[in-house]
Amino acid sequence: MNSFEFYNPTRIVFGAGTIDTVGEHTAKYGKKALIVTTRGSVKKLGIFDKVKGSLEAQGIKTVELSGVDPNPRLSTVYEGAEICRKENIDVVVAVGGGSVIDCAKGIAFAAFDDGDIWDFWACKRVAKKGLPIITVLTLSGTGSEMNTNCVITNTDLDQKYSTHYAFSFPKVSIIDPTLHTTVPKYFTGCGMTDTISHVMEKYFDGTKNTPMQDRIAEGVILTVIENEGALENPDDVALRANLSWAATMALNGLNDSGRGSNDYDAHTIEMEASAKYDIAHGAGLAIVHPAWLEFLCKKDPEKFVQFSKRIFNLEQGNMSDVEFGLAGLKALKDKFNQWGMPVTLKDAGIPKEDLETLAYTATQAPEGSYLVKDEIYNVLLSCYE
Amino acid sequence: MNSFEFYNPTRIVFGAGTIDTVGEHTAKYGKKALIVTTRGSVKKLGIFDKVKGSLEAQGIKTVELSGVDPNPRLSTVYEGAEICRKENIDVVVAVGGGSVIDCAKGIAFAAFDDGDIWDFWACKRVAKKGLPIITVLTLSGTGSEMNTNCVITNTDLDQKYSTHYAFSFPKVSIIDPTLHTTVPKYFTGCGMTDTISHVMEKYFDGTKNTPMQDRIAEGVILTVIENEGALENPDDVALRANLSWAATMALNGLNDSGRGSNDYDAHTIEMEASAKYDIAHGAGLAIVHPAWLEFLCKKDPEKFVQFSKRIFNLEQGNMSDVEFGLAGLKALKDKFNQWGMPVTLKDAGIPKEDLETLAYTATQAPEGSYLVKDEIYNVLLSCYE
Repeated sequence: MNSFEFYNPTRIVFGAGTIDTVGEHTAKYGKKALIVTTRGSVKKLGIFDKVKGSLEAQGIKTVELSGVDPNPRLSTVYEGAEICRKENIDVVVAVGGGSVIDCAKGIAFAAFDDGDIWDFWACKRVAKKGLPIITVLTLSGTGSEMNTNCVITNTDLDQKYSTHYAFSFPKVSIIDPTLHTTVPKYFTGCGMTDTISHVMEKYFDGTKNTPMQDRIAEGVILTVIENEGALENPDDVALRANLSWAATMALNGLNDSGRGSNDYDAHTIEMEASAKYDIAHGAGLAIVHPAWLEFLCKKDPEKFVQFSKRIFNLEQGNMSDVEFGLAGLKALKDKFNQWGMPVTLKDAGIPKEDLETLAYTATQAPEGSYLVKDEIYNVLLSCYE
Repeated sequence: MNSFEFYNPTRIVFGAGTIDTVGEHTAKYGKKALIVTTRGSVKKLGIFDKVKGSLEAQGIKTVELSGVDPNPRLSTVYEGAEICRKENIDVVVAVGGGSVIDCAKGIAFAAFDDGDIWDFWACKRVAKKGLPIITVLTLSGTGSEMNTNCVITNTDLDQKYSTHYAFSFPKVSIIDPTLHTTVPKYFTGCGMTDTISHVMEKYFDGTKNTPMQDRIAEGVILTVIENEGALENPDDVALRANLSWAATMALNGLNDSGRGSNDYDAHTIEMEASAKYDIAHGAGLAIVHPAWLEFLCKKDPEKFVQFSKRIFNLEQGNMSDVEFGLAGLKALKDKFNQWGMPVTLKDAGIPKEDLETLAYTATQAPEGSYLVKDEIYNVLLSCYE
C-alpha cells in the first residue's frame, strides 16, 4: 500500500422519499438557487417540479437551466456561469445523472471567472473557489454525487477532460432510488458498466498489498452483478438502491486510497472516443476497458487471477495465470454483453480509420501524458470488431 | 436497506512517516495546542517528542496532559477541560489509541462547559460545540480516529457511556503504521478483535438486503484475519498498515449505513464489564460478542450462514442453518483464542455472582434500554466458563 490522504465531506442522504428534503438541505447554503437539469425526463416525470417545490417551500428563489446534454458541453457551463453572476445565485442544485452534476460543478466555479474557462480543464489555470453544490441523483453510475470529478466536453476542440477541485465535492447529495425506476434498460446497463469500470481502473493499477481496498472494489463489482435484476425489473426499488450505493462507493476515493498515482487509463482512452462520437460513456467503457485490461493482464496477471477467482468463482485448473486472468475478463465481457452493451468499436459506429488519431489524442490528454500511442492503438484495434 | 444519512468529514493522512506532518495540519486550527496522551510508551518511544517538535516547528505553543488511562476517566476529561479554559487552547491533539482520542474528544467539548459534564454522557444535556481535534494514532482498533464516538468511564458511578456529536469528528487523523510496530502482541490482538467486533454488531443486526455494506464488513473481517501475521511479526509495517486501514473502515459509518437503528449491543454489554473490572475492551469483546451472536443465530440464522461461507469458507453439508451459523462462530472464537484473547468471563477475572448485576446495568445504559435483562444474563452465563 502507498501513503495517501482520504477526505470526502459530502453528506449523503439516501432512501425512498428523500427527494422531499432537498429544500431543507439547500436552505443551509443560500436563498437563491440555480437548478441545473436536462431537457428530458426529469421534467416530464415531475422530478423537476418536486425539487422546485421543495426549494420554494423553504423560501428559496429558483432560476432554471435545463439544457444539459449527455457528455455536457463547455457552452452550457458558460451559460450557467453567466446566469449565476447576473442573478446572484448562492447555490447550484443539480437534478440528474453524472452529466448534469458535472455540468453543475463546472458552473459553480466558472461563475467566479470571466476569462477562457477551458483553461481549468486544460490545466493552464487553477480555479480558487466554487459555489456550493447540492445534487439530486436520477441516474447512478458516474459516482459524481460523492466526488470532485467534473468532466466537460469542448466540442470546438473535440476534447473531454476533467477537473478535481476540493470545493467541487457536493455539500449534500440526495440519492432517492425511487427516482431511478424510470431509467431505461440501456442506460441502467451503462451505469452498471461505468460503476464496475471505476473500481477496475485502480484495482488493476499494479499496486501490491491493498487487501482492504481490493475487498471494497470486489464488493462493488459483486453487488452490481448480484443486482443486475434491475435491468428486467426496473421498478424494484431495493435492486435500484443497491446499484446506487455500489456506484457511489465505487468512486468516492476509498477504492483509490493507497493505490498508485496513475490515472484512469481506460477512462482517458474512452473519453477521446465519446468526445468525438457522443456515445454513452458506459457503453464506450464496455468496449474499451476489457481490451485495455487484456493488455495489462498479459504484462502482469497476478491481480487478474484474484479477479477470476473472487468475482466469477472460476477454477484455474491447468490454465497459466495469464490464461486464467483472461478467462475472468471473458466472463466480464459476456456480462456487459448480456446487459446490452456494445462489444466492438465498430458496433458503436466508430470508423476504423480514426483509431490511430484516437490513440494519439489520448496521449495528449492532461491525464494521459504517460500513455504510449502504439499500445493504445493496438488495444483499440483488438476491440474494433 | 433502510434510509440513511452518511457524513464523515475527517481527513485521513495515512502512511509511513506521516507523523511528521502533524504540525502542518494542526497549524490550520490554531496557535496553541493541548497534547493529550498516556503516561507510558508514547513518551518512552519518542513519539510525544516528535509530535511536540512538529507542532513547535510551526510556531504552535503546546501544553501537555499525559495521564490518560485505558478506559479513560471522567476525571481526566475535567482536568483537560480546565487546562483548555485556563490556557486558552485552540486545538486538542490526541497522541495514542482509542482511549486517548476519546478522552481528547471529551475534553474538546467539556472545555465549553463548567457544569456537571457527565450530563452529556448520561443524555441529560446536549453539548453545542467543541474545539477542533487532531489525532496521531498509535494503536489501531477502536476506529475513533474517523468517527464521533467518545467513550468515557465514570468510576464513581461504575458507568461507561459514549457521546456521538458531529463536532467530535477529528479534523485530521494521522495514521502512521510505523508507530504501531511497538504495540505488544496482546494489545494488537485486542485491536484486531475490536475491529471485527465493530462490523459484526451491524452485520448481524437483522436488516435485510444490504449487499454492499455486507461486502465491506466481510472485507474488514477478512483483511484482519489475512493480516494476523502482525502478531508474530510486529515490525512488519505492511501488515500493520492493513490492520489499521481495516480498523478505520470498520467504524467510520459505512458499515452502519442503511442498517437498523439498534445500537452496539455486545459493546453495551461489554462496556458494563470493562467499566467495573477495567479489562481491555477488545479482550472483553472476545468473550461476550461470540456468546451474544450465538443467541442471535438461534433466533435467525440467515446472515450467519453467509458469514460461515464467506469468512471461513465452511461447507454446510447436512448441518441445519443454525448449526452451520454456530460452526462459523466456533471458528471465530478459535481465531480469537489463537490471538491470545481470553475465552471466558472467569478467565477475565469476573466473579460469577456479579453476572446478574452486569445484565441489569446493561439494560440501564442509555444505549441499552431495549435490551432484556434475562437474555443478557443467559448470554453472560453461557460464556462464564
